[in-house]
Amino acid sequence: MHKINYGISPQFYCDLTVILVSLATMQKVTIIGSGKVATQLALGLFQANIDVIQVWSRTSENAENLAQKVQGQFIANLSEISNEADCILIAVKDDVIHELALEIPQGDYIIAHTSGTKLMQELNTHKNFGVFYPLQTFSKTKSVDLNTIPFCIEGNTELVEHRLFSLASKLSNDVRIVSSEDRKKIHLAAVFACNFSNHMLTIAEDILTSSGNNLSILHPLVNETIAKAFLQSPKKAQTGPAIREDQEVLSEQMQLLEGSPEYQKIYQLISDSIQKT
Amino acid sequence: MHKINYGISPQFYCDLTVILVSLATMQKVTIIGSGKVATQLALGLFQANIDVIQVWSRTSENAENLAQKVQGQFIANLSEISNEADCILIAVKDDVIHELALEIPQGDYIIAHTSGTKLMQELNTHKNFGVFYPLQTFSKTKSVDLNTIPFCIEGNTELVEHRLFSLASKLSNDVRIVSSEDRKKIHLAAVFACNFSNHMLTIAEDILTSSGNNLSILHPLVNETIAKAFLQSPKKAQTGPAIREDQEVLSEQMQLLEGSPEYQKIYQLISDSIQKT
Repeated sequence: MHKINYGISPQFYCDLTVILVSLATMQKVTIIGSGKVATQLALGLFQANIDVIQVWSRTSENAENLAQKVQGQFIANLSEISNEADCILIAVKDDVIHELALEIPQGDYIIAHTSGTKLMQELNTHKNFGVFYPLQTFSKTKSVDLNTIPFCIEGNTELVEHRLFSLASKLSNDVRIVSSEDRKKIHLAAVFACNFSNHMLTIAEDILTSSGNNLSILHPLVNETIAKAFLQSPKKAQTGPAIREDQEVLSEQMQLLEGSPEYQKIYQLISDSIQKT
Repeated sequence: MHKINYGISPQFYCDLTVILVSLATMQKVTIIGSGKVATQLALGLFQANIDVIQVWSRTSENAENLAQKVQGQFIANLSEISNEADCILIAVKDDVIHELALEIPQGDYIIAHTSGTKLMQELNTHKNFGVFYPLQTFSKTKSVDLNTIPFCIEGNTELVEHRLFSLASKLSNDVRIVSSEDRKKIHLAAVFACNFSNHMLTIAEDILTSSGNNLSILHPLVNETIAKAFLQSPKKAQTGPAIREDQEVLSEQMQLLEGSPEYQKIYQLISDSIQKT
């Protein structure tokens, strides 16, 4: 972690500054973006009595709508970003973060992106920059309780880190300082745990509907499986024909999947992997 | 579905019998087994004021313990099974169901197994037989609310089916008549939705612990992912780099997995499958 050097100040003075400044709340935030993450963060900040002073988005109409909801100002151009902002949160698609950061005027504010995978360094043309990553899947309309969501924070200086940490703490009880490298690993883990689990549900739904059933029959079982995995650890909680090495069921289920070589491959590979673990 | 022929009785008389007999509660149940399913079913029946009159298990000590909990009689030999039983539930490992069924004396009772994969016909040496399959993962100690658990029922006659349906309805609000064939498909879907999703969590935990984090950071995200999948359908709810066709993140994540060719294979195969869907 970088430490800033205040020149003439000795270390204890630096630390004191960090503490004092981080105690001072970030009161004014500008939101860049109007998608799911931007919307839920803006609403969350507004509810936490943080001023969302401006909202900008490539899609002006969405930005106007969001600005209205959080009683902020809609701006059509990035050049209109106010110097009064303490923090500018860039909540847009990964691949446009860097170019937008270049368009944002230099200022005393902190610029932070909300991506799980992009390096903090994407923003390093600015003086104060960092990451403000909420580890959650958002919808535009379904509101989420931000309070329990882990926020992964990173800053280019200790001071920036403290201020972003303090801002996130207004929204959530679970705020962590996480390096770009570790954040990438957390994001990768989330791909397995969430995106891939969700795809397993897609396949399950496909199998069920082809036999006239529907996915809802599995709801209690899936809920209990997830609850157990987090209670005991998934390794200990593993059940099913693969871990039991029940060859009869394994080959019978491979036969049932005969119509879909793709599902057979997945079935084989994951069953093998369960047995290796 | 089979229909029984009462010889001289016309169809309406048959139907009336079915209705009347199924209205008569099954009051006495014998449990074969003392594992997780046997334990939770016995406790559930006991709480629903059904007499669990006898308990038998290969492990006598466990059977004795369970019998005590449900105020039933422990029996050391299957030959001691009482003719008073209305139903004998065989809740044991799949591969011993058939041999145990052969050892159980013939009687007027209904014999049903609780397996997700075994055919009802495993029990066809008896007069009245069926399936009583609770679609849930059980622990011996963690009690589960049976009330919302889907019970898949099958019977060799309509009468048997009605009586098993009626018994299951004492435990749960979600009881369904399901053929052996459909039950196998439901079980296969459950392997994907639960066993394989759980393995995705195992891999996620592995990735997280290797970078000094732990699985709990993903708990809110996984819960929300599952909730969304059942609310919208998993196909619609799919997120992540694969569905976005984000080649940059996909290849970066493959690189992060370089130490584990097994995880790379899984990552590649499931990402491809998501893109095909």
